[in-house]
Amino acid sequence: MKHIKLIVEYDGSCFHGWQKQPNLKTVQSELEKALSVVCREEIGPLHAAGRTDSGVHARGQVVTFRSSNPPELLKIVNGVSHLMKGELAVISAEFIPERFHPGHDSTHKQYTYRIMNRPSPAILESRYVWHMHRPLDAAFLHDIAQCLVGTHDFSGFRDSECCAKTPVKSIYSISVERTGDLIEIKVIGSGFLKQMVRNIVGTLVDIGRGHLARDAMPKILASKNRRLAGVTAPPHGLCMEWVSYEPIPEQLLARMD
Amino acid sequence: MKHIKLIVEYDGSCFHGWQKQPNLKTVQSELEKALSVVCREEIGPLHAAGRTDSGVHARGQVVTFRSSNPPELLKIVNGVSHLMKGELAVISAEFIPERFHPGHDSTHKQYTYRIMNRPSPAILESRYVWHMHRPLDAAFLHDIAQCLVGTHDFSGFRDSECCAKTPVKSIYSISVERTGDLIEIKVIGSGFLKQMVRNIVGTLVDIGRGHLARDAMPKILASKNRRLAGVTAPPHGLCMEWVSYEPIPEQLLARMD
Repeated sequence: MKHIKLIVEYDGSCFHGWQKQPNLKTVQSELEKALSVVCREEIGPLHAAGRTDSGVHARGQVVTFRSSNPPELLKIVNGVSHLMKGELAVISAEFIPERFHPGHDSTHKQYTYRIMNRPSPAILESRYVWHMHRPLDAAFLHDIAQCLVGTHDFSGFRDSECCAKTPVKSIYSISVERTGDLIEIKVIGSGFLKQMVRNIVGTLVDIGRGHLARDAMPKILASKNRRLAGVTAPPHGLCMEWVSYEPIPEQLLARMD
Repeated sequence: MKHIKLIVEYDGSCFHGWQKQPNLKTVQSELEKALSVVCREEIGPLHAAGRTDSGVHARGQVVTFRSSNPPELLKIVNGVSHLMKGELAVISAEFIPERFHPGHDSTHKQYTYRIMNRPSPAILESRYVWHMHRPLDAAFLHDIAQCLVGTHDFSGFRDSECCAKTPVKSIYSISVERTGDLIEIKVIGSGFLKQMVRNIVGTLVDIGRGHLARDAMPKILASKNRRLAGVTAPPHGLCMEWVSYEPIPEQLLARMD
């Protein structure tokens, strides 16, 4: 058996999330079907670096599968991308040692959340941003987000359906930056609880628009109580950008003290 | 009568270009309809800074119209954006002196052309980029594009249906820059002939992929012969970014010698 690692990009609005579910079109099930055609054998189950929720996009999701007699790697890249008709593309494919697991072996990954912050609705970016008409102060939100950097129990930002073994995760970096009307919130961490990034973003926005107190962020973190946090930001503003298997860079670790 | 200037953003894939045409959905006709509803009177004809072709996007098209008793400007912004259902948004509205014309009075404007340059098709950016699987050398294309800067007869890059009075235009700046797999070609000029930017981009790409000689660009410009130039790049990679009515900045003029 050959073990193959793919990097895939997909438009989350085309799928009911990563995870296979009966009678729903999910990334996992559609990708298994396409790989089975291209490899001419039943492929699955696939493993992924993270199970993105329904509607969440990915630019650098990492997926592995086994095949007894796979075609050339370039044929996998082109064949699967062709079969998935603009909804998913394979960016790269490579052989990988047998024991590699895209989720367990990842050291850190980045999610980006995008907000279009202007009175008018988003047009060209509408599928990939959350529209927020009330002005947000990105520099202020950046400052109040910094208390999340470190290793913490993130139960305050955990979805009730989350089945992770532990609520303790490490955030290495979080930034909130405005370019014109677009605000990008970039979070780099060891891993994330279900809806953790969307709950952090929703809480930042609720503080920014005055629905929560300006000093609420450290209190919610310390409380470990999801009910104190803000709204869950909608999924289509979120994108899994990349997953790394390299050692965490020194400059990220330096901020963890 | 009040004279009002709008900045509008639209997704070109929803329209058969700017210009009103019988039985076709165009930006001009749809925007006239929406403005007529919001202003409660027949609005038109609209004037625009540039007549974008079918499929071409705009982030900063400038449009003017007259209304005898317009509602508050914010109601125009919100009302039109609401009626145009994610296909067009009014970014801003302001009263403007009677004699202002968005096309004739503009001093310079920027178009950006985007190319997704990788083996895999575009997914998240697919509506807004031209996919080109063969690797292009952006730095090389940047260098060969520089001969276009200046005031020239651009007949070599003019569509046969172009009805501009003169083929002489000024390009103040052109840059070709790669960020990851995305190549952005930004052109700032006094104005552009029909399909001029798309013909320049197509010629650059044809040189980049070896369909035209490496020294073809100055020769095509000098020849004034459209048949020597490359393909016309597809419209959906092009976007009208902004239109300026301010004096042309010194640093742009300095490059025109």
